[in-house]
Amino acid sequence: MNIEQFTDKPEIILTGDRATGPLHLGHYIGSLKQRVALQSVHDQTILVADMQGLTDNAHNPSKVSSNILNVVADYLAVGIDPIKTTICLQSQLPALAELTMYYSNLVTIARLERNPTVKSEIQNKGFERSIPAGFLTYPISQAADISAFNATLVPVGDDQLPMLEQTNEIVRKVNSLAGKTVLNECRPLLSKASRLPSTDGKNKMSKTMGNAINLGSSEKEISVAVKSMYTDPNHLKIEDSGCVEGNVVFTYLDAFHSDKNYVGQLKEHYQRGGLGDGTTKKILEECLQDMLRPIRERRAEYLNDKAQLVDILAKGSQVSREKTEKVLFDVKDIFGLNIL
Amino acid sequence: MNIEQFTDKPEIILTGDRATGPLHLGHYIGSLKQRVALQSVHDQTILVADMQGLTDNAHNPSKVSSNILNVVADYLAVGIDPIKTTICLQSQLPALAELTMYYSNLVTIARLERNPTVKSEIQNKGFERSIPAGFLTYPISQAADISAFNATLVPVGDDQLPMLEQTNEIVRKVNSLAGKTVLNECRPLLSKASRLPSTDGKNKMSKTMGNAINLGSSEKEISVAVKSMYTDPNHLKIEDSGCVEGNVVFTYLDAFHSDKNYVGQLKEHYQRGGLGDGTTKKILEECLQDMLRPIRERRAEYLNDKAQLVDILAKGSQVSREKTEKVLFDVKDIFGLNIL
Repeated sequence: MNIEQFTDKPEIILTGDRATGPLHLGHYIGSLKQRVALQSVHDQTILVADMQGLTDNAHNPSKVSSNILNVVADYLAVGIDPIKTTICLQSQLPALAELTMYYSNLVTIARLERNPTVKSEIQNKGFERSIPAGFLTYPISQAADISAFNATLVPVGDDQLPMLEQTNEIVRKVNSLAGKTVLNECRPLLSKASRLPSTDGKNKMSKTMGNAINLGSSEKEISVAVKSMYTDPNHLKIEDSGCVEGNVVFTYLDAFHSDKNYVGQLKEHYQRGGLGDGTTKKILEECLQDMLRPIRERRAEYLNDKAQLVDILAKGSQVSREKTEKVLFDVKDIFGLNIL
Repeated sequence: MNIEQFTDKPEIILTGDRATGPLHLGHYIGSLKQRVALQSVHDQTILVADMQGLTDNAHNPSKVSSNILNVVADYLAVGIDPIKTTICLQSQLPALAELTMYYSNLVTIARLERNPTVKSEIQNKGFERSIPAGFLTYPISQAADISAFNATLVPVGDDQLPMLEQTNEIVRKVNSLAGKTVLNECRPLLSKASRLPSTDGKNKMSKTMGNAINLGSSEKEISVAVKSMYTDPNHLKIEDSGCVEGNVVFTYLDAFHSDKNYVGQLKEHYQRGGLGDGTTKKILEECLQDMLRPIRERRAEYLNDKAQLVDILAKGSQVSREKTEKVLFDVKDIFGLNIL
C-alpha cells in the first residue's frame, strides 16, 4: 500500500513515537517525511508515547520525560504542522489506559507470548522470564491507542505488522461482543523507504546506541559521523573498484540526495574504480549538512520556547481526549457500564 | 489483627466486592458486619469492582453490569451508611487504570505467575494457558486500587494475603523510585469469622453455585435452603448421638444465633442424642428468617428507587475520583510526566 492510493479518500491515521530519545535520520526517511505528506489530506494524529516508553524504562524514567518536548520539536522542525496534525501525549489520555484494561480481558497470555514482534524484542532486550508485565502486554495498549482514535490507517514498518494483526483481533472481538461495528479495523501503511542502516552499518539506527545522526546533530557531529561511516572494507586504494552494496555512504546518498542521476553516476564511477571514499563522504556530508541545517535551526528555536511546545501538546491532547473518551464510552456501553 | 486494635486511631480502609452476583450470608458474616462496625471510626471506602469482575466475565458482561446496583442495595440494607462510608464504582475512576499501567512496568510476568492466590484461582477456573491477560495481571490492578486511596488497612481473608504482599512490593518500588514515601504500605485486617460453608457443606458459599443464602433470598428460598442443609449423615434416628463438627446447621447457628449459651445447650443435646435435625433446622430457620426479613425488605425498597442508588454511587465515585487523581498525580510526578 502506498500513500497515493489514499489521497482521494481521507483516512484516520494514528502514528507516533516512543519518547525515549531524539529522532534521527532513520525516523526522517522512514516516517516523518511521510507524515508531512499525509497531513494535508488525512485526519492525522501523532501520539507521543511516554507511557509506552516506560514499559522498559521504568527504572530510568528521565530517559522518557526529558525527551517528550525534544520529540515535539523534532516534529515541528521537519514540517509537521500542528494545525493539520494533532500532536498529543499518551499519558494525558486516560481513555487509553481504561481501554487497555477492558481489552486485557479479551487477550490471553499465550497469545501475547506468540506475538512475533514482542518475542523478538524480548530477546533483543534480554528480558527472558523477567519481562515486565507492561512490556508483554504492550500490544494491548497499542490496540487501545489505535482503536481509541478509530484509526483506519497506521503507518508501520513490516516488523510491526503482527501488532496490527493483534489490534484487529481485539477490534473484531469487541465488535462481536457488541453485535455491531463499534471499532474500525485498521490497515497498515507500509513505508516505501527501506530501513536506514546505522552509520557503522551493523544495525538499524538506534536512538541510544550512538550510531545515529539525529535531526538536532551539530555540524561537527554530522561531519564526524559521515567521516567514520562504514564503506567497502576491501576498497583500499582509490583506483580499486569498490562495492556500493552495503556501503552506508551510498545507502545514505540513495536516501537523501535529491539528484538520483548524479548518485547513479557516482555509483558507476565507484564500481569501476577511481573514486575515493573521501570524495563520496564529502558529497554526502554536504547533502546532509544542507538538509539538516534548517531543521536543526528550527528545532533549536522551538526548544527555546518550551511554553509554545507545551501549549501545542496540551491543545492536541485536549482534542484527543475528547475523541478517545467517546470511543471509551462506546466500549463501556458494550459491557453495560454506563449506568451512572 | 482485630478491629479493636484500630478503634482509637483512624485508618484509611479500602474494601470492596466484585459485582458478579448478589451478596450472601458468607459476605455478611465475613465482611459486611465488620464494615458496619468500622465505618464509624475509620475513613472507609468500598469499591464496587466492576472492571475486576470482567477479568473472567468479559464474554458475559451482563453478569457484572446487572449486579452493580444489587450490590449497592445489599450494602445499604445491612447498614452501611453512605454518609460514613464512601461507596464508589471502579470503572468511574480512570486513575485506577492509569496507575495499573505504570505499575505494570514494575512487576514481572514471572512474579505474577508465582502469586499463590492467582495460581489457585487459575487452577479453579481451569484457565491453564488461556488465561486472559487481565486475569493474570489483576494483582497489579488491585495494587492500583489500594494505593490509589493510600489505604493503610485492607480487610481480607487469609487467602488474599499474597495480594497485599504484592501490593506492598509495588508500593516499595514506587517509593524507592521517588526517593521518599509517596504511597502507604497497607496492613491486612483479617476477619475473625471463619469462612462460612455452603449449605451443602461442600465448598465455600458461591454467588453463582446455587448453594448460598443471599441477603435478598425470599422466605421460601431460606426455608428450602435450611431444610436441605447438610447435617450429620450418620445421624439417622432422633435418639442417636449426632456430630456437630462439619454439621452446617450448627456452623450457621454458631455464626448467626444471638444466644451462644442456647446454641451450646443444643450442641450437647444433639451430641448425646434425642435432638432431631428437623428441630435444629427449625431453630436455625427462625433465626435466619428474623435476621434477613428486615434486610430483605430494606434491600427491596432501595432497589425500588434505583435513581437513589445511582446517586449514591455517583457521589461516592466523585469523591473517590478526586482522591485517586491526587495519588495519580504524585505517581506521575515520579516518572516526570506532569509537564503539561
